[in-house]
Amino acid sequence: MSIEHLDSGEILSQAVVHGDTVYLCGLTPTDRSKDVTGQTEEVLAKIDDRLARCGTDKSQLLSATIYLTDIKLKPAMNEVWKAWLGDLNRPTRACIGGVELEPDVLVEIVVSAAK
Amino acid sequence: MSIEHLDSGEILSQAVVHGDTVYLCGLTPTDRSKDVTGQTEEVLAKIDDRLARCGTDKSQLLSATIYLTDIKLKPAMNEVWKAWLGDLNRPTRACIGGVELEPDVLVEIVVSAAK
Amino acid sequence: MSIEHLDSGEILSQAVVHGDTVYLCGLTPTDRSKDVTGQTEEVLAKIDDRLARCGTDKSQLLSATIYLTDIKLKPAMNEVWKAWLGDLNRPTRACIGGVELEPDVLVEIVVSAAK
Repeated sequence: MSIEHLDSGEILSQAVVHGDTVYLCGLTPTDRSKDVTGQTEEVLAKIDDRLARCGTDKSQLLSATIYLTDIKLKPAMNEVWKAWLGDLNRPTRACIGGVELEPDVLVEIVVSAAK
Repeated sequence: MSIEHLDSGEILSQAVVHGDTVYLCGLTPTDRSKDVTGQTEEVLAKIDDRLARCGTDKSQLLSATIYLTDIKLKPAMNEVWKAWLGDLNRPTRACIGGVELEPDVLVEIVVSAAK
Repeated sequence: MSIEHLDSGEILSQAVVHGDTVYLCGLTPTDRSKDVTGQTEEVLAKIDDRLARCGTDKSQLLSATIYLTDIKLKPAMNEVWKAWLGDLNRPTRACIGGVELEPDVLVEIVVSAAK
């Protein structure tokens, strides 16, 4: 099976496509002054962008891992998550709190999707 | 390849099947009054259930990620893990401690399996 | 699709190969007296070894998850990471800090690769 890289940079690729499976890097917000609601919205918009550039979309999500600096942020993050997915089938998901991310980043999301 | 969802709910699906690969959500115990031994037993029973409902079983595990609130719980969790797998071949595994999970949850386990 | 296990032990396999996809276990350094630079070098050498024993190499990496006990170790880890990958295309990656690993382990890395 072929391997395709999207935006391979100094550290990582934004996405890697292996056959029918798309792996996205851990995405974080650019505007780190926002609260977790705004940061999650920005991260999910980046996921939409990366999926589109790989020829797929959020209806094809397989799994997600969500990292939060504080598990107390989970309810607010979940509201953005649910609105983003609407009535689509959900991917599998794990949500892990209490980790250290880049300075002022509250949420990082990793997903895989089918193509 | 087809995508099938098992129990797609408000937040996540219990499992997503993509071709020959089964992804399970992060599973946690329902009875959170138990110690890590009891919680791990319950989580592994849920994994057995979800795998069965996807037409596979623990002999087909590919990878596991285990999250613990305290790395000191790892030896007790490992005893349950080894008993559960018996003489089956092991999946790959990473075990990460010191994270925040839902209140009173000590262990969360994510696995993937072949179908 | 076939499943092959590399060094299935008491707890885990060093690698599991499922069709064209190779999953490696979370790798940690053996010499835990080293700083994060030395520990990352040792972990990446173990990854090279495990990939080779599965018939693949780092040019075929798909995704990586890097766990650090302290996010402040990330820049030093990144230097080793970049040197190791040279001018190869990068996998996707997430780097999570502030977790508890085995005693004196500063870094643990999980990768998947194509075969």
